[in-house]
Order: sequence, then C-alpha cells, then structure tokens
Amino acid sequence: MSALEQLKVRLADVNALNAAESVLGWDQQCYMPSGGAEARGEHMAVLSRMAHEIFTASETGEAVEKAKAQVDPESEDAAMLDVVARDYALRTKIPASLVAEQAKTAAQAHEIWVAARKANDFAAFAPILEKMVELARQTAEHLGYKEHIYDALTDLYEEGATKKGWEQMFGGMKEPLVALVSKISASPQVDDSFLYGDWPESSQRSFTEMLLKEIGFDLNRGRQDTAPHPFCTNFSIGDVRLTTRFKNYLPSAVMGTLHEAGHGMYEQGSPLSWDRTPLAGGVSLGVHESQSRTWENIVGRSKPFWSLYLPKLKETFPTLSPLDLETFYKGINKVEASLIRVEADEVTYNLHIMIRFELECAMMEGSLAIKDLPAAWNEKYREFLGIVPPTDSDGCLQDVHWSSGLMGYFPTYSMGNLLSYQIWNCLVADLGDVDSLMAKGEFKPILDWLIEKVYRHGRRYKPAELIHMATGKPLGPEDYLAGITDKYSAIYGLN
Amino acid sequence: MSALEQLKVRLADVNALNAAESVLGWDQQCYMPSGGAEARGEHMAVLSRMAHEIFTASETGEAVEKAKAQVDPESEDAAMLDVVARDYALRTKIPASLVAEQAKTAAQAHEIWVAARKANDFAAFAPILEKMVELARQTAEHLGYKEHIYDALTDLYEEGATKKGWEQMFGGMKEPLVALVSKISASPQVDDSFLYGDWPESSQRSFTEMLLKEIGFDLNRGRQDTAPHPFCTNFSIGDVRLTTRFKNYLPSAVMGTLHEAGHGMYEQGSPLSWDRTPLAGGVSLGVHESQSRTWENIVGRSKPFWSLYLPKLKETFPTLSPLDLETFYKGINKVEASLIRVEADEVTYNLHIMIRFELECAMMEGSLAIKDLPAAWNEKYREFLGIVPPTDSDGCLQDVHWSSGLMGYFPTYSMGNLLSYQIWNCLVADLGDVDSLMAKGEFKPILDWLIEKVYRHGRRYKPAELIHMATGKPLGPEDYLAGITDKYSAIYGLN
Repeated sequence: MSALEQLKVRLADVNALNAAESVLGWDQQCYMPSGGAEARGEHMAVLSRMAHEIFTASETGEAVEKAKAQVDPESEDAAMLDVVARDYALRTKIPASLVAEQAKTAAQAHEIWVAARKANDFAAFAPILEKMVELARQTAEHLGYKEHIYDALTDLYEEGATKKGWEQMFGGMKEPLVALVSKISASPQVDDSFLYGDWPESSQRSFTEMLLKEIGFDLNRGRQDTAPHPFCTNFSIGDVRLTTRFKNYLPSAVMGTLHEAGHGMYEQGSPLSWDRTPLAGGVSLGVHESQSRTWENIVGRSKPFWSLYLPKLKETFPTLSPLDLETFYKGINKVEASLIRVEADEVTYNLHIMIRFELECAMMEGSLAIKDLPAAWNEKYREFLGIVPPTDSDGCLQDVHWSSGLMGYFPTYSMGNLLSYQIWNCLVADLGDVDSLMAKGEFKPILDWLIEKVYRHGRRYKPAELIHMATGKPLGPEDYLAGITDKYSAIYGLN
Repeated sequence: MSALEQLKVRLADVNALNAAESVLGWDQQCYMPSGGAEARGEHMAVLSRMAHEIFTASETGEAVEKAKAQVDPESEDAAMLDVVARDYALRTKIPASLVAEQAKTAAQAHEIWVAARKANDFAAFAPILEKMVELARQTAEHLGYKEHIYDALTDLYEEGATKKGWEQMFGGMKEPLVALVSKISASPQVDDSFLYGDWPESSQRSFTEMLLKEIGFDLNRGRQDTAPHPFCTNFSIGDVRLTTRFKNYLPSAVMGTLHEAGHGMYEQGSPLSWDRTPLAGGVSLGVHESQSRTWENIVGRSKPFWSLYLPKLKETFPTLSPLDLETFYKGINKVEASLIRVEADEVTYNLHIMIRFELECAMMEGSLAIKDLPAAWNEKYREFLGIVPPTDSDGCLQDVHWSSGLMGYFPTYSMGNLLSYQIWNCLVADLGDVDSLMAKGEFKPILDWLIEKVYRHGRRYKPAELIHMATGKPLGPEDYLAGITDKYSAIYGLN
C-alpha cells in the first residue's frame, strides 16, 4: 500500500470510532434510559481515547508527509491531506497531559457552573473559571500565534480567524446595530402573544416534519427525534440526525427545526464519494452557522414563506385561525433588547456576542481579572443593549461555554448571521425572484444553489477561500446590516 | 499495574467497542434511515475488527496466564479469567484467514439463500451451502474435539455441549412428544381465530409496555422499541433494549414482548459491580433461552396470568370483550403440527429442532450429501410431524442459520424449553402457590428467585454447574415432558 492508502485506512478507522461515539451521544440524548448513563460515559471515553491515539500517532503525521510528496497538489487528495495536516498539528501540539487536565477541570467546572448559576453565586464559580482561563492560555501558548493569544484559540473553531479579524467584523456593526435597536425600542412593540399556547406535541411534530420535507431535508438520509436541547449530528453523509423539542412557544420547535435542518442539509450536501473521509462535512463553525441561520431566519422568518405555510399552520393549530399574515410575520420577528443570548432575535443577537468577545479577549490577555467579570459584563449590557442583568445568573453565568474552556468560539455565531445574508444576496442575484419561489414552496433551486456554491465543497477549501468563491468578496457586515435594516424598518415602521 | 489490572483495562476497551457495535446494530434495526446503511456496515466492521484485534492479541493471553497465578482460585477474578481464557482460546485457535473467508462466504451465502428461498430453488443454494459446511468442518478441526466433529461447533454456543449430550437430551423426548402431538392432532382443535384482527399499534404498544412493568422489567434500565424482528440487546447492565413488532396476530407482540423481556431481565439481573466485565450477562444460549421461554410460555401462556390480564386486554381491545378466560387460554396454547419452526407452539417446537439437529450432524460428518438435504428434510418431517413441506422454501430453505455457518446452534433452543420447566419446578417447590402469585400480579418473588438462583451468577459458573446449583440435577427432559403433558392433556381433553 502507498502512504496515501495506508493513511486512508487509518483515517477510516478514526472515522468509525468518531461516528460510533456520535451514535452513542445521539442515543444518550434521545433514547437512553437513565440506568445506562455511567457505562455510556465510560464507553464514549474509550472510543474518544482510541480515536485520539490512532489519529495523533506519529504514523499519521509521517504518512501525511510522505503522501503529500506523491499527490497532485491540485487534487482532492491534496486538499484532504491539508485538512488532516491541520487537524494533526492542532491535536499533537498540545501535550496529552494538558488535554487530560483540561478535560478533568472542565468536568468539575461544569458541575460547579450548574450549581453557581442556580444559586446565583459567581464567587463559587470564579476560582475554577480562573483555572480554565489559565489552561486555555497554556493551550494557546502550545498552539502558537503571531499577534494575540486569542488568535490561537479562535483559530481552533474558525480556521484563519484572529482577534483583529473579528474586531474588523464587529467594528462596522456596533454603532448601526445599537442605533437600530434603540430606534426599534422607541417604536410601538409588535404582538407575539399568540405564539404562546398549549400546542399538542404530535401536531408540532407532524408540522415540523412536513416543513423538513418541503425545504428538502432528505428523510431517506436522516431523521428527526426529540431531545432536551436541539442539535444536529451525523454519522455519515447518508445519516444526518436532527433533534427538536416541543415548548409552549410555537417557534421553538418550528424555527429550531429549520435551524437544525440548515446544519443538516449542509452535511447532506457533501459529495457521497467523500463519505467517511475528512473532506466530508462543514468547513467551519461560522460557515455552518450561516446555513442554519439562512434556513431559520432568511427563509423561515420571511413573509413569502409564511404566505404559503400559515394556512397549513392554522389547519394544524386551529386556534391560530383568526391571524392574518402580517400580524404573524411581525410576531415571529419581534425584536427586544433582552438579557439571554439564546433567546435573542437576529437584530440584538450580535450585540450579545460582541459583549462576550470583548470580555473573553480581556480575560485571555489578563486585562480583566476574573473577579471583575460580573461588573464588566453588566457595564457592557448597559452600553450595548441598554439593560442590566438583575442577577449574575441572568448575566455572566448564563452561558456554558467558558466553563467548558471554549474561549474564541462565540464570534462564530455572529459570523453565521453575517455570512447568511452575504451568501443569500448572491443567491438572489443568481436566481432572481426568490420570494416567489418561496411563496410557491419551490425550494429546490434554492437548495441546489447552496449545494453548488457551498455544501458540495465540504472541507476542500479554507473558509475564507470558500466565502470568496461563493460571494466574490471577503466576509463583511454590509449585507447583514442592509438586510436587517430593511426588514426591521418595515416591521417597526421606522423612517 | 499488575497483570490483572492491565488485563481489565484491555477488556474494558474491548467491552466499549462491543457495546458501541451493539448500539450501532440496535439503531440500524430501530431508527437508521436507509441512506445510512452502507457507512453503518463499514463502521460496524471496523469496530468488530478492532475488538477482535485487541482481544486476540498475544498480550491478552499472556496477561491471563500471569494473572491466573496471582489470584485466589475461588475468587470472582479467577472465574473472570476462566471466561476470558475460554473466549481467548476459541478466538485464537481459528486462523484469521479462515475467519475472513467464512465471513465473506457467509455474506454471499446469505444473499443467495434469500433469493433461493424466494424462488424455491434449492439447487441454487446447494453449492454455497456445501462451501459453508466445508468451512465449518475446517473451523471444527482447528477448534479440536474428542469424539465427534459436531462437538467442536456446538460447544461454541453451549459450553460443554456435545453431540452425545444432545442425543441423550432428545432421546428421551422423541417418542413421548410424537405420541402427544399425534393424540392432540386426533382431538378436536381449539379455536384461536379471535386472536387475529386489525389491532391498533398504539394499543399493542401500551399493553405490552404495561406488561413489561408488571413483570418487573426495569424501564429505568432498559426500553422497548419497534423493529422488523424482535430481539434483545444490551449495552450495559443498566441499559437493556428490547424490540417488538405489531402484527395482526395479537400474541405476536404480546408473547414476543414477554419472550424478549425474559432475556432482558436475565441481563438486568447481573450484579451491577460486574458491569462492563466479562462476568456480566447470560452464561450460554440455552440458559438464556430458558428464561425467555419461562416468561413467554410458563408465565405468559398460563391461566393464572390471564385471569389477571385478560380483563385489561379486553379494555385495550374491546372487540375481545365476549371472550371467556378458558377460550382465550386455549386459543393462545393452540398446538398444531406445522411446517415453520418460528411459528411452532411449545409442544411441536422441539420436533422441529430434532430434525435440524439430526440433519446438521449428518451434514457435518458427511453421511448426508448436501444435494440430498431436501429429501432427507421432507422424510424427517413426515416421521416427526406427519406432514411434508410442499416446497423447499417451506422446508429446508426456511432457516437462516446454516447459510450463516451456524451449525450446532439449533439444540440450544430446545435446551431452553426443557430447562425452563426444570428451573420452574424448583421455583414452585421453593415458593409454593406460584399460581396465586401470578393471579395477583405478584411477580417480584418469582423474579427475585430467578435472580438469586440464575441471573445474579452471570457467567461466573459453567452452564452445567449453574444448572446443577439451581435445580439440583443435570439438564433433562422429564420436567418439560411432564409439564406439557399435564398442560395440553387438560387443554385438549386427553385421557
């Protein structure tokens, strides 16, 4: 066997272990009885360790080097080798002892965070957060960086991202966003009370499954189950699993389903010939999030979409019958400065992210002491959103990320929002009257365009390359700002 | 680390891979979309290969030998080492090339068998069956045996079993069974037409789940799903999965559920401290089957059981309301000489097995040429059951086993039938009026007795030892014969 063939066998083994761990994780969330929890944790840890051992063995790195010399640099194989080389470098630069310490500390930190949030007791969380930040710093030093320690970490989640890059992205947004939110806050609020009710679970399930089929999520290559938190996972290109949950707020299941379906259709869109190889899947967190946001916000919160599906929604939930399209449309697009990121609308959402970005940069570089985090958090909320959390539980204790050591992750959410509009505008330029397509339920040309421009490329190109190929320019906030300004000026009657 | 500790880590890794493969297999049957099939097959093959490689590595054998010298021979660890030593010997005696050839041939044979059964074309199946028999012979030679080549294979499924042992078991049964079936055939047949109907799936589901709870299957440590073929699998002692299916024949789901629950409660009954070790689980196929048969036939087809649950069944399926207990009881115990093993009642069932046992012994030793199998099969059916299959599809092509290379497996089904009565009689001797317990739905003392005498011992003792410990004597047909003779004489009014 050539070095390339040997490497492919090795990577297929790693793929099998990772896929198995994903199946176990999916089942853990969806079906596992409580009695299975302890053994499941042990089983997943073994699979994870084996995958790590096989992938980070020196044989992998050597095979990559040898194979590189043997392949055409423009070939798919060469692109695959680049992906593996990057992953290998990231995984081998950090000493195993540090990875182990981080995992152990993160497990403790998670428990302490859960209790601290419940008890609104930041002081109880501060020492272990301090330790997690210190371990993140050590990780960053091992990974290396050119300009700022934050760069090493954020690159883990979004290849090529840097503190400076994110600052440029956010820089153009802050002022117009704060101004827009302020104008909206000064306008009469829209009504969304009709979205709350005792919606039967089976009706929510059948309606969301109908939507999945309509937009083109392939149910022969995936399915939807129920879990406490919505997520998308996949075991192969032909097996993509979505989860949703059923709440008394109707958009929770409906918009959640469209969001996860966006992730899922991206995964389903890789070429089948790449199945079980490192080229399959999404290229980065930010690009992935752009697709969940596209289907959730740009499609799923649009007026043409609901001109078609509101009548069906009324059939499913007859108490909604009196609603007109305009009222419904405004209700699902209600904007409100609020305290909790995960409940934020698409206008205020990025402000929540900017706050976290600025604070985690400061924590990483040491300019913000952990003990001062609550005060800094509250001050930022006042500055960006004009509101102050009454408790730390509703403030700096709300997110799970930092307790897990995820520093540098948050900006990818904002990137998803921006990029969704940037890509969509190119789609509209190519396809023409996309609103009419949506109003007729003709999603195939839309999905096909996204597959052609984004999904089918998997991980073959770097995120920045892919964005440039798909949109003809680098990532920027302009399309997003223009898009939401138009949309919400109309909804709130701004001049 | 001591040799024992090193071995335990190794075995825990193997356990994780096996458990993961089981989860993947369960999901494949219960939830996987069709698009996931190809990758799933590859993933399971990788896990299987890794588990095999780790388990059969020379380090395992060496660690077992070293550890044996270090442990108290009466300890649990010593018993665990015995189990591992046996499995290791069985897995390492057969050359990897033969295992691979058998797997490859079995995969082809399965496809050919499916087509041949459909087309009623034994001649198309004969050549590959010949090859599977030859490979089974080679396997037996590698495993070694003292008296008969069949011994090496049947020991794989039932430790300590031999052709002679099975002959002794069957020897005492054939004449009385054939006579009993003949008497029953000459008596007026009971009616079971009321068991066929358009039973709503959700009602079948809720009724069978109610039964699971009632008899003591722990739903915090297991669950029931739907699959094309009913089975029981487990990923740990705390996570035992049953499946059932919903047909127009009501006992299909009801009795199938009780059958699988018997397997499941056996698995749940291992001491929790043995979780993820080789000591957990059932000791052999025959002992396992005895427990599924106990809950399906002895409990689930008894009059006291239905004196309690028939009213509940009528509530769930109101069309059954006119039925009296006696008619229902007779209906679910209908005996009929029939052609298909998997649909056979508990009286005729063993005759189907004896036919297969005699034929597979003859094929293994070469006294029956493969081409003569259909004629031999039909002749045995005439002799044992008084009927002759009109086609080979209803005859020697009906079972999947031989196409998979499973020779020596069938007798464990009969062993389960016999042993279920043998163990039950001891239970009755200890607990007294067990009929009254069942009629009151008091299954806890019954389950507790089975746990105490059988389930909690996992794989700690050899099957023959366990049977002797639990029943005070070796396996024999007397209890079964006496039990069914009594029961069916009453049902069919025999003198």
